Amino acid sequence: MNKSIVKTNMTNKNKSMKNGLIIVGSVVSLLSAGVAQAQETRTLRMHAAFPTQAPVIGEISPWLAERIEKLTGGSLEVDVFEPGALVPATDYYDAVSQGAVDMAFGTPGYGSGLEPALNIFTAVPFGPDVTEYMAWMREGGGQELHDEILEGMNLKGFVCTLTAPETAGWTTREFNTPEDFSGAKLRYFGLGGRVLAKLGASIQMIPGSEVYSALELGVIDGGEYSNPSIDVRAGLDQVTDYAYFPGWHQQVAIDTLIINLDTWNELSEQQQLAIETTCGEATMRTLTQGAAAQPAAVQALAEDDSVEIKVWSDEIMDALETAWEEVAEEESAKNETFARVMDSYNSFREQYAKWQKLGYLKPETDE
Amino acid sequence: MNKSIVKTNMTNKNKSMKNGLIIVGSVVSLLSAGVAQAQETRTLRMHAAFPTQAPVIGEISPWLAERIEKLTGGSLEVDVFEPGALVPATDYYDAVSQGAVDMAFGTPGYGSGLEPALNIFTAVPFGPDVTEYMAWMREGGGQELHDEILEGMNLKGFVCTLTAPETAGWTTREFNTPEDFSGAKLRYFGLGGRVLAKLGASIQMIPGSEVYSALELGVIDGGEYSNPSIDVRAGLDQVTDYAYFPGWHQQVAIDTLIINLDTWNELSEQQQLAIETTCGEATMRTLTQGAAAQPAAVQALAEDDSVEIKVWSDEIMDALETAWEEVAEEESAKNETFARVMDSYNSFREQYAKWQKLGYLKPETDE
Repeated sequence: MNKSIVKTNMTNKNKSMKNGLIIVGSVVSLLSAGVAQAQETRTLRMHAAFPTQAPVIGEISPWLAERIEKLTGGSLEVDVFEPGALVPATDYYDAVSQGAVDMAFGTPGYGSGLEPALNIFTAVPFGPDVTEYMAWMREGGGQELHDEILEGMNLKGFVCTLTAPETAGWTTREFNTPEDFSGAKLRYFGLGGRVLAKLGASIQMIPGSEVYSALELGVIDGGEYSNPSIDVRAGLDQVTDYAYFPGWHQQVAIDTLIINLDTWNELSEQQQLAIETTCGEATMRTLTQGAAAQPAAVQALAEDDSVEIKVWSDEIMDALETAWEEVAEEESAKNETFARVMDSYNSFREQYAKWQKLGYLKPETDE
Repeated sequence: MNKSIVKTNMTNKNKSMKNGLIIVGSVVSLLSAGVAQAQETRTLRMHAAFPTQAPVIGEISPWLAERIEKLTGGSLEVDVFEPGALVPATDYYDAVSQGAVDMAFGTPGYGSGLEPALNIFTAVPFGPDVTEYMAWMREGGGQELHDEILEGMNLKGFVCTLTAPETAGWTTREFNTPEDFSGAKLRYFGLGGRVLAKLGASIQMIPGSEVYSALELGVIDGGEYSNPSIDVRAGLDQVTDYAYFPGWHQQVAIDTLIINLDTWNELSEQQQLAIETTCGEATMRTLTQGAAAQPAAVQALAEDDSVEIKVWSDEIMDALETAWEEVAEEESAKNETFARVMDSYNSFREQYAKWQKLGYLKPETDE
């Protein structure tokens, strides 16, 4: 797994293309300004944080590469590398920052060791629906704060995938009251894990690919990975007894494409717009792919006698929400950037709430 | 208003560019295959159904033109024409079908005189949220049905704008019971109007630009136009006493870019992808712009003593929903295509409902 799975037989073609372009270039330079400049192909190396065979969040990496290449008429070529091929799956912010890799696709949460505020751009417990979250990002100041954080790391980045609400957790035992979390060994990622730690859970940061075996071996009592369609594909229903809903910890998850800032600044406007526009289309594409994949997964769970669908009690939901408010306050007190991002997010939500209540139909509540 | 407002001084530049490209083209043709082919600039004429100075749904037309031009490295130039400049604002499907105009941006509803099923791709009364609506379009069969309808009209088309939930109506009198609609003169567009006609209202199809004067002169007792931010910009709050919510008739509205099919088939893959990808980004862009614009508009209404915010009674909402079910059945009985699209839509929603109930946090219900 130490080379691209997407590009294998392109080397010879690219070499001949490059030679051709040098000849054209010298002819073109004799002609008047305003002529579309023939460009050499520039190859960008892209780290994928998720295996490219994983549904939605994995498959999108080679799709992005192909679309960017086609939109730039081949002036950009993007080679996709599987997790671990160039850098560890989750530890790539430094590599892109230093230019060891040109770009990477994954969750902002993987950069939270460098800047905890990146967790807020990943998924916020008890967070908004996708329209409100993306409205904050694009129109409410979120993108500017994200830009500022990334610029400090010599990076440029765009929202490039949206993930449907996650399963709240796959467990081998029941959780009926907030006290049941005390001492429970759980795999949870990001801010959701911090919330459960508040309730006394022991949070294990196990990579997503190892959640299945950890559950099977009884190393953990439960854990979350992704949304039902991805979880079922990973077999988590086979090694647990209960599937909990709703996923209060990740109602929407954002993944981003990040690019070394020096590389970004060297690109032409067309190349920059090809990347940015492709990410815009990718957000809509993955949002709808993710949404469309869940009903069948939930139906399969309902028909599977070996696993029971459970809904958190109101008492547990209230305790989790209170714990999240404490975590948000503590993180804000520790970190000025986290506080600024959280303030921006909260003030947008406060203004949005009245409109949401007035303008939207209420969901059906009948059973 | 009989020429493009976007392109005015480009003619000379384009001519010299075209001459330059012919020379380059003949040189390039001598070189090896695989060289990026220098292309002549092709100019597409685009009709805008909404004035380009209107927020979100208007402004997006010149934005689309610019983005497509830049993504194609100038090989496509898109000239935007205001409503009425080439063809009437709402009556353009035939013109694009016949190639009198290359493309047009507007609502599918404007084609519903040719094919009533296009109303279902515009906005469905008591319809889903944006995630579910777009999941049906992109992953649940909606796009294929839309493609089939458009192909029969010699057209290609993409969802290219999403509009936030609309104000349910601006009225000069109160509506407290379903009986109050009997005899009321109301301006409503599309399927929403059909629903209100079921309750005995007299539906007037007045163009959006004339709703203000019709209300001011008392020609109508009320009407809908768009969402609060656009409505307030149009001054509808100044000529009415009540603003009703929620907008059951248009929770999400879709606008599309349609292109003459012969023109589409002549485009290169890069040019086609530039149009398709730009529309993907445009859906996300307009979704978030629309969402972010509503809180301030609603706040302004709340502070305006001359207009009162009203919420439909449960009795009225139930009557409207029942009337919508009757309209859907009647339309399906009359038109086989309408029935097929409606069946696809309904069966997607049925499967989606269980997932939605399980996976999503319930909105706050406290006052």
